[in-house]
Amino acid sequence: MFCAPWVGAVQRKIDMTGTPISTKANESQSLALLKAIQARLGPAGLLVLDEDKAAYEASARHGGGKARAVARPESADDLSWLVSELVGAGVSFVVQGAATGLVGAGTPTDVGDQWVVSTQRLKDTLEIDPVNRSARVSAGYRLSDLNRAAAEHGLTFPIDLGADPTIGGMVATNTGGARLIRYGGVRENLLAVRGVLANPPGLQVGSSRALRKNNTGLDWTQILTGTFGAFGIVTHATVKLHPVQSQTATALVAVKCPEAAIRLVCSLEATVGELVSAFEGISGNALRAVLAHTPGTRGPFDVTPEYAVLLEISSAVPRGAGLDVEDLLVAWLEARMNDMDIVDAVVDKPELIWRMRHAISESVQALGRLVAFDIAVSRSRFAEFRQHALEVIHKFIPGAQVCDFGHLGDGGLHLNTVVPEETEQDTIGALRDAIYELLVNQFEGSFSAEHGIGPYNQRYYERFTEPAMKSLADVLRGHFDPCGLSGNVQLS
Amino acid sequence: MFCAPWVGAVQRKIDMTGTPISTKANESQSLALLKAIQARLGPAGLLVLDEDKAAYEASARHGGGKARAVARPESADDLSWLVSELVGAGVSFVVQGAATGLVGAGTPTDVGDQWVVSTQRLKDTLEIDPVNRSARVSAGYRLSDLNRAAAEHGLTFPIDLGADPTIGGMVATNTGGARLIRYGGVRENLLAVRGVLANPPGLQVGSSRALRKNNTGLDWTQILTGTFGAFGIVTHATVKLHPVQSQTATALVAVKCPEAAIRLVCSLEATVGELVSAFEGISGNALRAVLAHTPGTRGPFDVTPEYAVLLEISSAVPRGAGLDVEDLLVAWLEARMNDMDIVDAVVDKPELIWRMRHAISESVQALGRLVAFDIAVSRSRFAEFRQHALEVIHKFIPGAQVCDFGHLGDGGLHLNTVVPEETEQDTIGALRDAIYELLVNQFEGSFSAEHGIGPYNQRYYERFTEPAMKSLADVLRGHFDPCGLSGNVQLS
Repeated sequence: MFCAPWVGAVQRKIDMTGTPISTKANESQSLALLKAIQARLGPAGLLVLDEDKAAYEASARHGGGKARAVARPESADDLSWLVSELVGAGVSFVVQGAATGLVGAGTPTDVGDQWVVSTQRLKDTLEIDPVNRSARVSAGYRLSDLNRAAAEHGLTFPIDLGADPTIGGMVATNTGGARLIRYGGVRENLLAVRGVLANPPGLQVGSSRALRKNNTGLDWTQILTGTFGAFGIVTHATVKLHPVQSQTATALVAVKCPEAAIRLVCSLEATVGELVSAFEGISGNALRAVLAHTPGTRGPFDVTPEYAVLLEISSAVPRGAGLDVEDLLVAWLEARMNDMDIVDAVVDKPELIWRMRHAISESVQALGRLVAFDIAVSRSRFAEFRQHALEVIHKFIPGAQVCDFGHLGDGGLHLNTVVPEETEQDTIGALRDAIYELLVNQFEGSFSAEHGIGPYNQRYYERFTEPAMKSLADVLRGHFDPCGLSGNVQLS
Repeated sequence: MFCAPWVGAVQRKIDMTGTPISTKANESQSLALLKAIQARLGPAGLLVLDEDKAAYEASARHGGGKARAVARPESADDLSWLVSELVGAGVSFVVQGAATGLVGAGTPTDVGDQWVVSTQRLKDTLEIDPVNRSARVSAGYRLSDLNRAAAEHGLTFPIDLGADPTIGGMVATNTGGARLIRYGGVRENLLAVRGVLANPPGLQVGSSRALRKNNTGLDWTQILTGTFGAFGIVTHATVKLHPVQSQTATALVAVKCPEAAIRLVCSLEATVGELVSAFEGISGNALRAVLAHTPGTRGPFDVTPEYAVLLEISSAVPRGAGLDVEDLLVAWLEARMNDMDIVDAVVDKPELIWRMRHAISESVQALGRLVAFDIAVSRSRFAEFRQHALEVIHKFIPGAQVCDFGHLGDGGLHLNTVVPEETEQDTIGALRDAIYELLVNQFEGSFSAEHGIGPYNQRYYERFTEPAMKSLADVLRGHFDPCGLSGNVQLS
């Protein structure tokens, strides 16, 4: 270690002007470091050529950065050794999984002196325990890898996402997704994590205990989950698995207004409770965007409604064994059909309905210049918030077209908006400020429901996080990374 | 503050010889403090007479202690003021809810200089939001209060316990219970918490945001849940509620052996998945203890089996609306009846079956001198661990009678054992060490599944917690309670 723990934390504060701390190793030290890393990790473990690094420099949504080098360890031991070397050399690094995150937390800055530590090759463990309904999995496996292995035992890791991230990235980001209403997010499905710390450099911590009950104080899951790599690098996760669903019924329901959508989710939960597995809200504009993006198709409704919901109920009970979820859904819909709330409904064709839902994000983006929001609000305040938000958006940018959609059942809302190409960046910034101000301070909402904290919403973290929590994060950062070398997420 | 933050932490380390730090205020200061507290909290807010304090000095399982005084604030503001006064005067205090905990975390030491801060009168908020399926509740309300209010809206907070603790105690202890297999524990059902810190003295932190998705970094729920008051005092919780079950089917099944019980839970989950709401294991000795404790009753089976399971499936779908859980359970049982695993089964009389289950703890205690264990292990290693544990117990104490039972579906096990009255305390200590050693180091289990950490298992926390986690807890304790005044749980 080249600096005392607390000195480093102070120094980092001084250096936090938006640019990362520059590499302190000189050129010959740097060459020696590269050689040592290549010797340990092998040729595939170190990438230094521009064409090799390129894939690790791109961000899924917001441009990209520039990496000094990319290190790709294959085991927790190699990762531990690597981190110890990098910290010892005073090298700044950012940890990256599959680079599917939407807030830039895994992307290097554009200065070019930061290393990328990729966890993609961390694949020493993928063990399904069907008796305990759990899995132990290395950080580098993808969600699809885990689910493929679990499916062989009739099990699933029920985090349902558009992307296919690594397990390590999912833990660090605490991803949510479309089935959270039923299963919770990553945090609720984690039994244990293992990780590597930057301080003491390279220390391996945590456990793989596959325990649903283990009430013995603080645990690394609380520290490393949803903290975006700020306090340590996830190497393994032990997760709960759930029985796969044997039957599913899906409906797309045109409703009178967003208020009606909320009344419907309450009615549905009161009637079928634990069987609800998705409840998505889709605005008329979002539906129209999907139809426009796929020319020749026509919508499921004669008239595109102001608002619609995709609802899904499902069960592990096999069809024919005393429960038919489609019958249940149809009966519920029929009993509600005379309500003023429901305008129209389609029950069959789940693939088509979900395909439309999954096409929204891309279809809206295709309409023009996108301003995206990933927010959450209590269901009981959703409709009122949405109304206020639309007014704010149209006040700031009169030509804006709001194509909102989201995981309405859990209060999630992607308030995605297409704005005229010529809109000033300052206007968009002011709009974003106004929306978050309304949401967080008046409607008790969240400015980042699912995507987490990264450089692209750092300023909102700083603005809306209470001082006592920032002090705590500062203490943790000082403890875990006193030299401020790890990552580009500043939870302090 | 009478000491600098880090000096206090160091001093506490020096003082940690098992006795609490003695009150540093002299008598006249002490009288002034009592008067000030009585003036602010009112006559009912301060108890100093022995007969008034007695109820706050008893521990639910392990004897009791002695309180200098008991303070009972009615609001978070009063609690905040109180903590600031106590810390300012250098007074050591322990926080107590309903005093139903089983590890002494809320009981004062027997020195008599520690205050009890009772949260029982913290009842300013009890708001059910039926639309969001959530509740905001003050720390002093009991689980039964919350569930009574939720039931008016067809909702429930699904933590099912034998005791009726305060909500604040439940958060601090991260309680689990009998329905964890379906709903998770307190942590999985918390949306937000608010609390009061000892440093800065009396600072109120946290939020009441009723958000299922709020991925904005560290949160007080991760810091104050399951840390037993070591880092702060919970004043309010915002929790998820779930639809109440409309129908329930319960069976008591005699099985050939514990291995068969594990095979059954796997089969049941594969068949009815999300409908499983309890799966409890009961040893033959535990069954016999219940029957012996209630003379005149006879068991549900002609021959008391070596092992039995209580299983429950339930649904919010009303009976007659397309699902009958009793039919489902009977069909599943009939299909398995020819298995060698099932010896006998009773399906009706859920009240009787659950009454037997709830009577186990008391019945076993009535048999003689109890040595209780609250442990967890992966389901896939349960039967093998149990076999080893029985051998260890009989080796250490040949006359021991193991009457184990527990939440088998989630790996929970109360390995409660009746030992001869004359058994040496040292022998019991050695047995406990041996069981935990086997469990934690060979079977990757937990030495405290549900009850948490308190003085009565402090030494096992110290023995089995990894050094890096203790260092972290030390840093947190230094940050949140530098003078070491709050509580008697030492997570460091």
